[in-house]
Amino acid sequence: METAILLISCPDRKGILARITSFIAENGGNILHADQHIDFQKEIFFMRIEWTLDGFKIPKDRIEEAFSPIAREFSMNYQLHFSSEVQNVAIFVSRYDHCLYELLYRFKAGELKGNLKFVVSNHTDLRSVVEMFGVPFYYFPKTKENKLEIEEKEIELLKGEGIDLIVLARYMQILSERFVNEFRNRIINIHHSFLPAFVGAKPYQRAYERGVKIIGATSHYVTEELDQGPIIEQDVVRVSHRDTVDDLIRKGRDLEKIVLARAVRWHLENKILVYDNKTVIFD
Amino acid sequence: METAILLISCPDRKGILARITSFIAENGGNILHADQHIDFQKEIFFMRIEWTLDGFKIPKDRIEEAFSPIAREFSMNYQLHFSSEVQNVAIFVSRYDHCLYELLYRFKAGELKGNLKFVVSNHTDLRSVVEMFGVPFYYFPKTKENKLEIEEKEIELLKGEGIDLIVLARYMQILSERFVNEFRNRIINIHHSFLPAFVGAKPYQRAYERGVKIIGATSHYVTEELDQGPIIEQDVVRVSHRDTVDDLIRKGRDLEKIVLARAVRWHLENKILVYDNKTVIFD
Amino acid sequence: METAILLISCPDRKGILARITSFIAENGGNILHADQHIDFQKEIFFMRIEWTLDGFKIPKDRIEEAFSPIAREFSMNYQLHFSSEVQNVAIFVSRYDHCLYELLYRFKAGELKGNLKFVVSNHTDLRSVVEMFGVPFYYFPKTKENKLEIEEKEIELLKGEGIDLIVLARYMQILSERFVNEFRNRIINIHHSFLPAFVGAKPYQRAYERGVKIIGATSHYVTEELDQGPIIEQDVVRVSHRDTVDDLIRKGRDLEKIVLARAVRWHLENKILVYDNKTVIFD
Amino acid sequence: METAILLISCPDRKGILARITSFIAENGGNILHADQHIDFQKEIFFMRIEWTLDGFKIPKDRIEEAFSPIAREFSMNYQLHFSSEVQNVAIFVSRYDHCLYELLYRFKAGELKGNLKFVVSNHTDLRSVVEMFGVPFYYFPKTKENKLEIEEKEIELLKGEGIDLIVLARYMQILSERFVNEFRNRIINIHHSFLPAFVGAKPYQRAYERGVKIIGATSHYVTEELDQGPIIEQDVVRVSHRDTVDDLIRKGRDLEKIVLARAVRWHLENKILVYDNKTVIFD
Repeated sequence: METAILLISCPDRKGILARITSFIAENGGNILHADQHIDFQKEIFFMRIEWTLDGFKIPKDRIEEAFSPIAREFSMNYQLHFSSEVQNVAIFVSRYDHCLYELLYRFKAGELKGNLKFVVSNHTDLRSVVEMFGVPFYYFPKTKENKLEIEEKEIELLKGEGIDLIVLARYMQILSERFVNEFRNRIINIHHSFLPAFVGAKPYQRAYERGVKIIGATSHYVTEELDQGPIIEQDVVRVSHRDTVDDLIRKGRDLEKIVLARAVRWHLENKILVYDNKTVIFD
Repeated sequence: METAILLISCPDRKGILARITSFIAENGGNILHADQHIDFQKEIFFMRIEWTLDGFKIPKDRIEEAFSPIAREFSMNYQLHFSSEVQNVAIFVSRYDHCLYELLYRFKAGELKGNLKFVVSNHTDLRSVVEMFGVPFYYFPKTKENKLEIEEKEIELLKGEGIDLIVLARYMQILSERFVNEFRNRIINIHHSFLPAFVGAKPYQRAYERGVKIIGATSHYVTEELDQGPIIEQDVVRVSHRDTVDDLIRKGRDLEKIVLARAVRWHLENKILVYDNKTVIFD
Repeated sequence: METAILLISCPDRKGILARITSFIAENGGNILHADQHIDFQKEIFFMRIEWTLDGFKIPKDRIEEAFSPIAREFSMNYQLHFSSEVQNVAIFVSRYDHCLYELLYRFKAGELKGNLKFVVSNHTDLRSVVEMFGVPFYYFPKTKENKLEIEEKEIELLKGEGIDLIVLARYMQILSERFVNEFRNRIINIHHSFLPAFVGAKPYQRAYERGVKIIGATSHYVTEELDQGPIIEQDVVRVSHRDTVDDLIRKGRDLEKIVLARAVRWHLENKILVYDNKTVIFD
Repeated sequence: METAILLISCPDRKGILARITSFIAENGGNILHADQHIDFQKEIFFMRIEWTLDGFKIPKDRIEEAFSPIAREFSMNYQLHFSSEVQNVAIFVSRYDHCLYELLYRFKAGELKGNLKFVVSNHTDLRSVVEMFGVPFYYFPKTKENKLEIEEKEIELLKGEGIDLIVLARYMQILSERFVNEFRNRIINIHHSFLPAFVGAKPYQRAYERGVKIIGATSHYVTEELDQGPIIEQDVVRVSHRDTVDDLIRKGRDLEKIVLARAVRWHLENKILVYDNKTVIFD
């Protein structure tokens, strides 16, 4: 059963909700999910609304046109998606394999709705794992010197293959501003700390040294500033004085893969709206 | 700023949401919160919608009348509340004082929006605590023999004082069917286990004997069947082989008071809908 | 650096700890970990103690003999292990693959210290997955009629290959008492509920119907009675009225694989003592 | 039943554990709890050991003398405590009352083992609450100008009353280095964030602005540097885009009081060892 999904944000005003829901009802749509949120401080209205296309009087390819007067009237930013769309995904990875396996498994099991087109790495270590799952593997050896040049090749590949979402599954390279701008709000990273604690390198080592009693992991969209992008999901696990840095790393791995997988799922199901360097998750 | 709140459940049908939101919009209401849920298995639509009365064209005491044609058309069960209403609350307690203190504090601090009218107990142990907070205390000594008779007196007091919500804060007496029926979905109990595990007496002892690694607490509406009513909230805490029964009791106390306080808050803010022995929490 | 590990339980008495630690110290052992626990209700002493063999005066194959007088004096049950030992493991699986993948990955990644010798299934669905990881796969088609007969063949295989631990990774068959007795405290199962809630079939369906606000998973040793064996580990995740049975199943999968993997790791690292249908976890 | 408790830290060496436990066993002590930990990176040995004095051959007031040769031999830092000792406690508070109530209740209920001698505040708002619980209240109005002078009076009061532990229950004043030095590792603070995230002022506001999905609270010993002292306990709660700053404050209150109460309990039960700006919690 195919559905249409509208993701909307606009200045908050009286009557928005009635206008949107009437548009759907008058055209014979059956609303399955409607989730709205108002940021009262900034006076912004957010909505995710999903309805069945079966019986909807407006053909799929005319919905955008039919909706646009409402969008203009309320100065909306909006995205229109269809449940039949499947996004193309690329994974970037370095040498750690736990997040990669998790994603490979979830795509294969159909739990993540998306076309996993290929995996890119700056090392060859994980080629055999990727190929074991029948997924193409591209090796792009990056150095300080050739970074921008290599990135151009990566961008070319990503655009050529129509990639919609890039997942950094413990990819140990910082992307250039140019790269980030090409895929604004379409690159998800997993950081192995409870942000904003321990931004940057070696968070488990620093968590150990600080003597924290809980560690975390954070998935977020990538922006120019390191580990400063909109947070999508976080989770934590308890540690104690008995845990060495290696224990933190081991416990953290289980967090990282879950927290990254949740973010990827929400993105692929069009459940995330980004604004003001934050996320609204319509889960 | 006064608001109106509609809690609605009805058979799911096309156009409900548009109809409700248009009713509010056309009369000049500004929707603050709108949260809906559809149980697709049972085809039931649920909604909590809250809008400002300032500028709303229909006077408060005519809203119900104005809304009733829509309610009839869609065969709705609905409740209309106003943010200015404050519910009257009675607490029932036996000898354990941790939940009692928590509620006394939260009412006093204004965190729980409600009129705490009095506390009822089948023991006198906690009289001084209750009176320390300036709250009237009623002692109803119950025995097997006089239980129904005493309950009648309690019901008389509760009705006389216009009590809307009864909170059993570790009240170690089972209420009769007659009593429960008088306050259907208006009696909240805290059970000191993760229901449906360990229904009935001595749940911590039994959790210890079973060797569980996590214990819990459950707040629920009281029904005729012991510990079988609609669950409102649950929470858990980790335990280990090192924990004795006394440790479980101590750890459990911290759960019980939090889990009970959350349920009371949601009830007083009209955020709970009961159906099919379950709850929808519009939080 | 090789270590020896003693797991001890005995009636609690003065001087046990001094006796054990002196035995190690006098023979030049360096204690790395010492963890003890006393069940004061049952007056039982438990200990896990690990020391380096480098510099230890008693040769590995004489330690048991040297320790036995102490063991007799205190009426100890004890197990002596060496860090160099690697246990042989077999996984039993039916059709769900999430726990299987998790274990295959963790064994491959070296996170689980053990020889994964083979996988047994009553279906052929997962053969290709298992073989993708280079692990032998045995298909034993079980029916009501041939169950005991097939089990004999399985036992023969398990014994022939020297299997120390059997992991039921969502194996949808109940093992006979005969089978369980052959591998007492050496069969780990994952049950997809927070035991003792929802023993038996369809726990997610029943959790949904009961309207719980938290679901869980439990790993335990298998005994004759279904889902009644000693609990090793449990974990939980929050759910709401928005979650369908399918959502519970999806959320539960992530719990199941983590909770099972933790139990397997502790078992393989000799960190579990079973007594009185409970576990002591020396983590 | 009176017990003795030794808290020990020293350079790690062979034979320590045997030496300590033999000392107790040879003198007829019955060990109730023994918990040790080795920091392998820094090669430090930590221990908490508790034994019954009933039947112990050395009189209470001679134990220290008898143990001192062992302490010297192994270059130990150690503290000797007795279960019969009760520490004197003072609470410092400003205007928020949730942590104060929690502590007042727990001391009154006997859950916290300690003599709550008095409460100090830089405001008079909470005088009536404190006196309602029958606890003396001291008002010390602090300004930028008189801060050091007032602190001298506070120190005089604290020393005069033999205060062992100071609990800052949301005390909104930074203590001087002089004050901190007088009560090294004996001042516990609650910080309303998940340290090291959001050190300093307005952590909930900043958590909201950063868009985190989980908030936390941290109890720690106070050192010269703001929010940099050894962390004792942390806990967290999930938040979402729906939560305003006020919601974070409300949810955070429930964390703060629990996290502070746990730290106070462990301290009063002599379960905390501080080293290297971290804590070992023998729980």
